[in-house]
Amino acid sequence: MIHYKAPLQNIHSILFDTFGLDQQWASWGDELPDRDLAESILEEAAKICQNLLLPLNQSGDAQGCRFDNGTVTTPDGFSEAFRTYAASGWCGLGGNPEYGGQNLPKSLTLMVDEMLYAANPSFALYSVLSSGASLLIDCHASESLKQQYLPALYEGRWTGTMCLTEAQAGSDLGAIITRAEPADNDQYKISGNKIFITGGEHDLSDNIIHLVLARLPGAPAGSKGISLFLVPKFVLGDDGNPDQRNGVQCIGIESKMGIKASSTCQLQFDDATGYLVGTPGRGLNHMFTMMNEERLSIATQGLGIAETGYQSSLAYAQERVQSQVAPGSASDTIIEHPDVKRMLQTQQALNGAGRALAAYIGNQVDISRFSHDAIEKEDAGKMVALLTPVAKSFLTDNGIDCAVLAQQIFGGHGYIRETGVEQLVRDARIAQIYEGTNGIQALDLISRKVLGDKLAGYQKLHKEIDEFIQSKKETQELNTIAVAAGQALVELDDTTRWIAEHNSKNQTLAGAVASEYLQLFGLTIYSYFWLRLADSSDDVDKTSTLETATFFIKHLLPHSHAFAHSIQSEA
Amino acid sequence: MIHYKAPLQNIHSILFDTFGLDQQWASWGDELPDRDLAESILEEAAKICQNLLLPLNQSGDAQGCRFDNGTVTTPDGFSEAFRTYAASGWCGLGGNPEYGGQNLPKSLTLMVDEMLYAANPSFALYSVLSSGASLLIDCHASESLKQQYLPALYEGRWTGTMCLTEAQAGSDLGAIITRAEPADNDQYKISGNKIFITGGEHDLSDNIIHLVLARLPGAPAGSKGISLFLVPKFVLGDDGNPDQRNGVQCIGIESKMGIKASSTCQLQFDDATGYLVGTPGRGLNHMFTMMNEERLSIATQGLGIAETGYQSSLAYAQERVQSQVAPGSASDTIIEHPDVKRMLQTQQALNGAGRALAAYIGNQVDISRFSHDAIEKEDAGKMVALLTPVAKSFLTDNGIDCAVLAQQIFGGHGYIRETGVEQLVRDARIAQIYEGTNGIQALDLISRKVLGDKLAGYQKLHKEIDEFIQSKKETQELNTIAVAAGQALVELDDTTRWIAEHNSKNQTLAGAVASEYLQLFGLTIYSYFWLRLADSSDDVDKTSTLETATFFIKHLLPHSHAFAHSIQSEA
Repeated sequence: MIHYKAPLQNIHSILFDTFGLDQQWASWGDELPDRDLAESILEEAAKICQNLLLPLNQSGDAQGCRFDNGTVTTPDGFSEAFRTYAASGWCGLGGNPEYGGQNLPKSLTLMVDEMLYAANPSFALYSVLSSGASLLIDCHASESLKQQYLPALYEGRWTGTMCLTEAQAGSDLGAIITRAEPADNDQYKISGNKIFITGGEHDLSDNIIHLVLARLPGAPAGSKGISLFLVPKFVLGDDGNPDQRNGVQCIGIESKMGIKASSTCQLQFDDATGYLVGTPGRGLNHMFTMMNEERLSIATQGLGIAETGYQSSLAYAQERVQSQVAPGSASDTIIEHPDVKRMLQTQQALNGAGRALAAYIGNQVDISRFSHDAIEKEDAGKMVALLTPVAKSFLTDNGIDCAVLAQQIFGGHGYIRETGVEQLVRDARIAQIYEGTNGIQALDLISRKVLGDKLAGYQKLHKEIDEFIQSKKETQELNTIAVAAGQALVELDDTTRWIAEHNSKNQTLAGAVASEYLQLFGLTIYSYFWLRLADSSDDVDKTSTLETATFFIKHLLPHSHAFAHSIQSEA
Repeated sequence: MIHYKAPLQNIHSILFDTFGLDQQWASWGDELPDRDLAESILEEAAKICQNLLLPLNQSGDAQGCRFDNGTVTTPDGFSEAFRTYAASGWCGLGGNPEYGGQNLPKSLTLMVDEMLYAANPSFALYSVLSSGASLLIDCHASESLKQQYLPALYEGRWTGTMCLTEAQAGSDLGAIITRAEPADNDQYKISGNKIFITGGEHDLSDNIIHLVLARLPGAPAGSKGISLFLVPKFVLGDDGNPDQRNGVQCIGIESKMGIKASSTCQLQFDDATGYLVGTPGRGLNHMFTMMNEERLSIATQGLGIAETGYQSSLAYAQERVQSQVAPGSASDTIIEHPDVKRMLQTQQALNGAGRALAAYIGNQVDISRFSHDAIEKEDAGKMVALLTPVAKSFLTDNGIDCAVLAQQIFGGHGYIRETGVEQLVRDARIAQIYEGTNGIQALDLISRKVLGDKLAGYQKLHKEIDEFIQSKKETQELNTIAVAAGQALVELDDTTRWIAEHNSKNQTLAGAVASEYLQLFGLTIYSYFWLRLADSSDDVDKTSTLETATFFIKHLLPHSHAFAHSIQSEA
């Protein structure tokens, strides 16, 4: 009962009609794809997601990963599928071309991430963690480590992990105690225990490259004493191939609510050989390169699962016949029932703007990477910092809400495992928790990214949105949307200034209002994105885009007022 | 990591201090309990829930029900526990004393239901379905059927089921096709297939009494052609004991997202011996006696699971140490973090008012049953009809929201099965779906219970709430709450009248706004209940009750405005 076809037309339209990214890419030089090439890459990604990964999603959930004496066996078909996927080059999509990466823009690779999560979230994680590990190595490791590790990671012959959490150090990474002792040949010996390590052990690749936070001898307490190390499962031999088994063991995997085909490992490091990445004491800082990459990716987990839920519940609603909408008529398909229509429109309204937000923030990453203008690059970097917690939280909160709505449309059948739709709820749930809980994201947004930046990045975004809204108020078909978006923006602005003003007098204010502020922020920028989507839609889509935008404005945006009111009641 | 102690003090306080039910019961005669007796019954219920049922909840989920060749084996310990539970008299709590029932008020038995669901939702279902089946038999069956079936149902030696759904007839019960052919001795032969039958087969009791909707020969199409039959698993012998196996077989059970220890059965009826209950053609009508009973009970499923989530996440938040709230201090327990506090307060604010709503509607059931005043009885019946869909939907929607918040407080540990908290989310989810989806409840509220009643019952409730609010506005400590509740009430009233006015011009309006109207209704009456709770709280609880009431008013109630706005945008 699960239906998923990648929404290619919508993706193409957002990237190229709404945001005109092909022109932007062209302005940066020849190495970026033109629209035709980008569209064919997306079409190929759609094929592999629909044909190779989607069919393994439900069976992967039913079977789960199995642990036996240090080894992890992924569900039937996963290992072969990963090798096929890797051989087609999908692991190096955004990678550095000097080491075999394909250097594609983030706005494009995030759309591929969405498809991966839509088709098979557990499978997706093995891939996106490897991409993040590659990025971290590319940004912070020595030339020698890059040469040794990046090509095989880009080829998907090896995969990567992010080893942060310890039992006593979850959201509080400053509390980690894993140790790194200097040894010969610029090597270190790593010892300690890590938990919740996604892809920490499995049978998909020939080597697993762990990126591990640990403390050097005499390092200060807290986050300033943390350094970053690369610890391979197999130490490389002189020929650069995996050789001797390193001192890192998987001692167990977690039995979880969902993403059951993704191995979540407890890893024990016993004098494991590791290599310093970047500067001692800057480990947590370096790790944020990977963490922020994963946060953006996880945002699209929410979006992708929500898209699968939408398509599946739409198909079911078009085919399931129950009751009449008006007395006396024959029974109708349930899509005719207004409350079912409301549930479908809610999903559409959240997913459409969510995809626009993902593309928008992806483009900000690209500007910060490819632009030739130093100020533009810096501004874009700030925008990425500002919007990453919003995307991570708001898309994953909406992800589970949409999955629940999809399940609701299936009625009792949605609660039965074989239908597949209840898996969406279980798989979507983790996205609100990992890579920094959504509460942590909310605190990051208001404390660091808005107040800590003295509203600078926020004001830049505000100005962009305000100018766009003002420029569309005179367009008749857009007027209602523009006016509502404008009102929401004023309320966001008033509330932001109110918090800035009261924050100094009240140490816990930011924390108390953080989650509501993030919701207010998310709803407000969604109204901006709906205005942009409605403005850029072509004649074929205009009517339906205006309808969904209007639904968003009428039924979802009004809650922004409630959040603003609620925040300002914390006086 | 699951913590649950029945909130006895709060239950006693709501029943007796807030609503003064002991005095009301005394006014109806001697047969109802006094406060002391009622409190000791609730204390005994708490013990059995905490000591017998709670320890089987996680193991029941892990093991699930097993199906083999027509038989269903419940998880280890369930059968023994059910026999202990039944032997202590808990199956006949609200039953008719003429047949061995204990005739206790609904306001009390609903509090017991909450505890059952809090401790073990799967187990609870076997019991509450039997209570509903008993009520249906008591209200509509012949004297002879009552004598044959009620005593053993009250003793829990036999259990009951509700056989409505067929593959093509879910929300649309008029579409059922199961047939009943008249046979000798006032018997009928029942043939057809039913799905999603809770407790349709199991090993807890010596007989299972199915209450089955079916069509007599020549019956008209739709709901008017449906009659109700009692079909025992074992036909009774001359001695009144289960004797010959009847023609009803369990042909499979569902593998579900949650409530895994509750058997959800596909039943096949092949010329099964059945007995007519009530009037031919009035079957669906009679069934609503049971259905409404179950809807109220399921409301407390949302509440009970939410209470367990609250207590578990509170205990975890008091013990888990992560990060400092303010820079420079030592690490704090996470309950010190304002966003964690917000999640705990949200749960408290929803559960406190939810429990008051359950007690309130239970008391309306009791007035309609025990009162000596005919008009009061009729009014109370209308109030039950009006509030049943609100309680069923609003408490179960809040149930999953609270379970998700509880899980969120556990961070990554909340996603791991062994912690037990993810089970709460899976178990709570079904309550929004079964016994009429929450969308169906919302449509029932606005179409039948408000508009169909020409606002009569609604106006009575409105008057009661308005008078109470006005009477408390001058009390200083209650003023803020009373003013906010008053504003919400005005908005509910405006919106109700707006819908009534526009409904005649727009056939799909009621359906389109139904769910938002139910949310508006629920939030508004919760503000009334918080006012009553704050008003009646004693000195010990006054501060904390006012704090939670104020949190509700500031942070949750403002969304009622958004719902009102959203509804009226459907012009």
